[in-house]
Amino acid sequence: MIEKMVETAKDEQSIILNSPVVMPKASGFLWNDHMMMDVNCRGYAVAQFMQPEPAKYSYAPNMEMKTFMQPEQPYFAHHPGRFVYIKDEESKKLFSAPYEPVRAMPDQYQFIVGQHEISWKVVFDEVELNMSLSLSPDEPLEMWKVTVKNNSHKQRKISIYPSFTIGYMSWMNQAGQYEADLQGIVCTSITPYQKYKDYEKIKKLKDMTFLLSDKAPHSWEANWEVFEGEGGIHNPSALANDMLSNSDARYETPAAVMQFRLTLEAEEEQQFRFLFGPANNKQEIAALRDKYFVQTNAAGEDGFTTAQQAYQQYIGRGAGRMTIQTPDASFDQFVNHWLPRQIYYHGQTNRLTTDPQTRNYLQDNMGMSYIDPTTARQAFLTALQQQAASGAMPDGIILHKDAELKYINQVPHTDHCIWLPICLMTYLDETNDYSILDEMVPFQDDPTAVSVFEHIVRAMNWLLTTRDERGLNYIEQGDWCDPMNMVGYKGKGVSGWLTIASAYAFKVWAQICEDAGRADVAERFRAEAEQTNAIANKYLWDGNWYARGITDDNVLFGVHTDEEGKIYINPQGWSLMSGAADEEKQAKILRAVEELLETPYGVEKLAPAFTKMREDVGRLTQKHPGSAENGAVYNHAAAFYIFALYQVEQQDHAYRLLRKMIPGPDQADLIHRGQLPVFIPNYYRGAYRQIPRTAGRSSHLFNTGTAAWVYRCIIDGLFGVRGSKEGLSIAPQLPSHWQTASIHRQFRGAEFHIVIERHADIKEMAVYVDDQIIEGHTVSNIQAGETYNVLVKLPQ
Amino acid sequence: MIEKMVETAKDEQSIILNSPVVMPKASGFLWNDHMMMDVNCRGYAVAQFMQPEPAKYSYAPNMEMKTFMQPEQPYFAHHPGRFVYIKDEESKKLFSAPYEPVRAMPDQYQFIVGQHEISWKVVFDEVELNMSLSLSPDEPLEMWKVTVKNNSHKQRKISIYPSFTIGYMSWMNQAGQYEADLQGIVCTSITPYQKYKDYEKIKKLKDMTFLLSDKAPHSWEANWEVFEGEGGIHNPSALANDMLSNSDARYETPAAVMQFRLTLEAEEEQQFRFLFGPANNKQEIAALRDKYFVQTNAAGEDGFTTAQQAYQQYIGRGAGRMTIQTPDASFDQFVNHWLPRQIYYHGQTNRLTTDPQTRNYLQDNMGMSYIDPTTARQAFLTALQQQAASGAMPDGIILHKDAELKYINQVPHTDHCIWLPICLMTYLDETNDYSILDEMVPFQDDPTAVSVFEHIVRAMNWLLTTRDERGLNYIEQGDWCDPMNMVGYKGKGVSGWLTIASAYAFKVWAQICEDAGRADVAERFRAEAEQTNAIANKYLWDGNWYARGITDDNVLFGVHTDEEGKIYINPQGWSLMSGAADEEKQAKILRAVEELLETPYGVEKLAPAFTKMREDVGRLTQKHPGSAENGAVYNHAAAFYIFALYQVEQQDHAYRLLRKMIPGPDQADLIHRGQLPVFIPNYYRGAYRQIPRTAGRSSHLFNTGTAAWVYRCIIDGLFGVRGSKEGLSIAPQLPSHWQTASIHRQFRGAEFHIVIERHADIKEMAVYVDDQIIEGHTVSNIQAGETYNVLVKLPQ
Repeated sequence: MIEKMVETAKDEQSIILNSPVVMPKASGFLWNDHMMMDVNCRGYAVAQFMQPEPAKYSYAPNMEMKTFMQPEQPYFAHHPGRFVYIKDEESKKLFSAPYEPVRAMPDQYQFIVGQHEISWKVVFDEVELNMSLSLSPDEPLEMWKVTVKNNSHKQRKISIYPSFTIGYMSWMNQAGQYEADLQGIVCTSITPYQKYKDYEKIKKLKDMTFLLSDKAPHSWEANWEVFEGEGGIHNPSALANDMLSNSDARYETPAAVMQFRLTLEAEEEQQFRFLFGPANNKQEIAALRDKYFVQTNAAGEDGFTTAQQAYQQYIGRGAGRMTIQTPDASFDQFVNHWLPRQIYYHGQTNRLTTDPQTRNYLQDNMGMSYIDPTTARQAFLTALQQQAASGAMPDGIILHKDAELKYINQVPHTDHCIWLPICLMTYLDETNDYSILDEMVPFQDDPTAVSVFEHIVRAMNWLLTTRDERGLNYIEQGDWCDPMNMVGYKGKGVSGWLTIASAYAFKVWAQICEDAGRADVAERFRAEAEQTNAIANKYLWDGNWYARGITDDNVLFGVHTDEEGKIYINPQGWSLMSGAADEEKQAKILRAVEELLETPYGVEKLAPAFTKMREDVGRLTQKHPGSAENGAVYNHAAAFYIFALYQVEQQDHAYRLLRKMIPGPDQADLIHRGQLPVFIPNYYRGAYRQIPRTAGRSSHLFNTGTAAWVYRCIIDGLFGVRGSKEGLSIAPQLPSHWQTASIHRQFRGAEFHIVIERHADIKEMAVYVDDQIIEGHTVSNIQAGETYNVLVKLPQ
Repeated sequence: MIEKMVETAKDEQSIILNSPVVMPKASGFLWNDHMMMDVNCRGYAVAQFMQPEPAKYSYAPNMEMKTFMQPEQPYFAHHPGRFVYIKDEESKKLFSAPYEPVRAMPDQYQFIVGQHEISWKVVFDEVELNMSLSLSPDEPLEMWKVTVKNNSHKQRKISIYPSFTIGYMSWMNQAGQYEADLQGIVCTSITPYQKYKDYEKIKKLKDMTFLLSDKAPHSWEANWEVFEGEGGIHNPSALANDMLSNSDARYETPAAVMQFRLTLEAEEEQQFRFLFGPANNKQEIAALRDKYFVQTNAAGEDGFTTAQQAYQQYIGRGAGRMTIQTPDASFDQFVNHWLPRQIYYHGQTNRLTTDPQTRNYLQDNMGMSYIDPTTARQAFLTALQQQAASGAMPDGIILHKDAELKYINQVPHTDHCIWLPICLMTYLDETNDYSILDEMVPFQDDPTAVSVFEHIVRAMNWLLTTRDERGLNYIEQGDWCDPMNMVGYKGKGVSGWLTIASAYAFKVWAQICEDAGRADVAERFRAEAEQTNAIANKYLWDGNWYARGITDDNVLFGVHTDEEGKIYINPQGWSLMSGAADEEKQAKILRAVEELLETPYGVEKLAPAFTKMREDVGRLTQKHPGSAENGAVYNHAAAFYIFALYQVEQQDHAYRLLRKMIPGPDQADLIHRGQLPVFIPNYYRGAYRQIPRTAGRSSHLFNTGTAAWVYRCIIDGLFGVRGSKEGLSIAPQLPSHWQTASIHRQFRGAEFHIVIERHADIKEMAVYVDDQIIEGHTVSNIQAGETYNVLVKLPQ
């Protein structure tokens, strides 16, 4: 069992182990505009950078497939990592920090994931090692600081060996050597290719990997085989000698290992700094050395120091626009610090892809509307430029001139249009910038620019025309749920969820039209929403919930007579949002979801998880039960459901589910489940009723639309401080056991300090602004630069 | 240093270590029609099977890229392998056989690579383990036998744990569990895919991996993480307990580990047998269990036993058609046993690809002409059916209806036509079956069948028309040397080698035409050969050797003024074959090659190896210096050169180079260089004068046209017992230090026992058949079924 304690500071999470027995496997992540790094508490690391497609500079020891990040990638002995071996030169004892590869249990251990820095403190035999990692604000570059301290009262002789794995770079060409003029190990490779036309791309790639040190090492090893020898990675043969062999690698697996021999007096500390990253040529590396280790500013700080500060500022730009204080401190910490960081990561890096799926891109920028609305605005316009004149949205948005639609974006999905009004709504709520609707934008297949308003009307019309004779929306090879790829591939199958979601999109769009002064269009789409809801009720209601769809062969599925995949969460929640479900149906839905889909880890996406291929549903049913889409607690879908619960004012229920999703440092089992609570993962393993042993495990993927929706749930639902055409509408839905809560919200340039209190002596909510009660619960005529003190009194 | 001894038996090679200090890394390989396995003496294994493309059932722990076999793939701790952990239940000492992953040094160790079986004998603390592997003759299936023997005089309590790695199978779905009814561990996965059209293929794949035992285990572990724990693969945590935990894997890395607890009396031995392989479904696995472990024949032998015999017969079909005896015993052993095995492997499996490169396919079947001419005949016809009516040959030959041209076969090469007459010549020499020239065969783009003769005339005409105004052959994006892809991609660059090789092809084709009674065509192509040789001499002669080609921008390269890639071996050897080089040029060439290209490990392909991109040559120049094509001792090219040396009667020189290429058990350094001498690898690392440290290392790839050419060198050159229209022509070219040699040769249904002796008292070679001297040195009127005793007397 893990003996652990998780301490909480404002912007960091840490695992502290005293007299540890078992080492956890939690990880944190850092990013800049150029790269992303997932760093595991044991020292394993996955780093990718863009050039323009994702690339690596530290590889596995075999040829890895290029693919998306794996949700539950296992680690293994030679997994890429950043390790420091420590040898006591007197006792010859060997340790490694953070933990791998020697796996000696430290006397003290701390893994601290901060917003802009990940660090470790590890103590072995009174030798204290502090390792910390931050990234450059400007380029794909890891900045490492390692300090070694003698905590004892006598002199110690030790060697430290920073060991950064390089791995199997290329079967065409790979090498490594120490370069004295750079004070570093430089590894070269040529990305394998066969067609001469690829050469133009290949030659621009950063195919080199370097490790630079700010101090000259006493010896080094650039050849992994020489370093490891027969001892194995847990006990490398080279460490048995006084000095490393100063080897090079010539078409051999390179390594970047340096030795520093230290004599530390009692309490003495020494510091080392390293740069690790990719480059195209040696000149680039020399320039980085100069920039980070040689040049200093007026204050005498070198580039390494100023870059750390600049990176902190970079991450700081992603700070949230609200600060909450509730009876649930760990909930507050996550929402105030970690959640906006995750939203900012999505909006800033577009998930490190050059062709994000359209639905992801729009929802990520729904989140970015809170953090950086200028970026969000531009993203909506970028997406609409790639719309077809027919109204159809593409499967992915191309963000780089050399990019192309890859992987799942080559499979036709039919839901992309619905996200336009739904995500734009948040942008408008937040900014009141209705001018975006008048922006003139061309189509991908027609250079004639029309207004954004017209673009969205065409998207809504497209949803109305791509329906069958009953009025149900075709699913083709997928909708929001990618792997449901054989429901409608013959051109007949329809999506129950998408039909209901279209009704909701029409309803939202009608509201936007209304607010934009286009009552005529509003009326039309309000009618379409009603009509679509009626269609859903006619064909999809299964008695206690809505079916998921109808296959090409006219088989209704996601119904009580199915053995597997009886109920899917999405049609249920969205029917609450669209208004399809009347009160009676609502009650039945809430009951069915609770009974069949809710688990200790949240709401599952469907149940029972499929255990075998159902050919008329498709690939989804072949996914591992409880994994990813097949029965997982898929947080994105769970967030929709929570949002829907707030729509129908089920605040206690909503909060209960929200609390399961949001990882707090008090959720002690979360580390056990594979995650340090610094982000919401795309899923927790599901199939709880079928495979309880593995249910609740955390995926490692932080790429998920969940983050934006959770932020929206908290603003629109829990605190009910949503923007409107008139101003800030106030309608909190605190869980009934909260007596008070407060929120500091930046909104349209003003500051809102909102305190919510329950009062036993009132029957209805009352809102006071600067002690004046206001009618209609909306703070209007908001002046930028002003501060508003709002008091909300709620009945018990 | 390795303390080792390599013993030699007729059909096996072994490494024997007594009181070993360092374990080598040599490997052997086995195959059947469905699969190939490369097995390393330490226990690591690479196995691939065809369905129809190459697939795996034992994976690395991360997602591996699908690619061709890597020439010098490094091993790593979690590399796929077949291990047996051994625990002494009294002392708790842990070992593993063969060596990995514990890496405990055994007291005795033997690794034996036989023709049809690979086995180990490993002794630890008087516990002797024998492991042996053979393959099924019928399906992709590993058959393992493990015996454990107590060599001591007291009772021993031990556990053995066969541990077969499964690895990371799929991010879509993977699991593993023990199935009591099968007495085995069954692991399931779904090959990842996204497009519904791929489902039809996916569902037929053998996505399961199983390990079946003929005895019920006492416990098992199907979950790698549970098995390994924190102990690491070298010391798995699960082995600290009395029993394994009988775990399953659910979307976790599966394992196939079983425990057998044994009490062995003094000298007692117990045997275990296992089946390991892929399957599509559980019924298939049950059927295999029944076939191999349950059903018995009349003699009471079960399927496992009879399959071992059948596999031995399968491999036996690849026995060579000659047996030599020379003063060089290890040379004899390699040529008599291993060389035909390698040729048969190529001809039988087509390098485990569904689209072999045309030049490889034709040359492999040149080799198959000696072993199984019926297969070779069919292959030539198959290739010609894919010729275009223009005469052009495709870049690859499609062997399966679902196959397509992949990788390098998508890059246009211009040399494929030359291999038709060159390879067919051997088939005709061996069989005298000129009827193949009359076979009517259509074209890939024209259903009108024409004769094979006409097909080849068109191929020769194609070589004559795809030339520039000087008469030099265009290279487009490559010729025999794949990565020379930017010499002529603009459509102007020409290949010096291909021009010379065309002359040789014309010369060979003229000879075939002559023998086929088409003197008119023979005359025409003899003239074309002469003309082409004249062109080569005019444009390509550099003073001491021939240039390699002329780039798109009219730059002659492979010449003495080049800093890198001054000289390429191929134009030199082929000029000896084509007749381009007169005696003076021949002498200069031999000198230049010796000085610039010959090394202790053979002849390099080019020198100096390129160390940087030369854009007008292309990708070749980016390959690692000394690796694969860039300056390696590329044995295929070296074999051409040896063949050429025999053509110009440089027998001592030819033998010296042949001896460097053929791995013999007396080449003690070969194991050090990474190979057990059971095959000729595609290269030994070159760039000897630039990077001496790594020169001579052996590639692990046994896929190479070298084998067929070496066989031909020995038959046509060294022993000079080549077939002709009239019969068997006798013209040995023994190295001058051999006083005698003999060859037993099967030829056109007859048996030839040929003894060659040097006699001091003769001036000219004399040939006796059954004691009668014959004129013209050709044994004619050969009768199938007869035995001919031939004595060849050579002058000193």
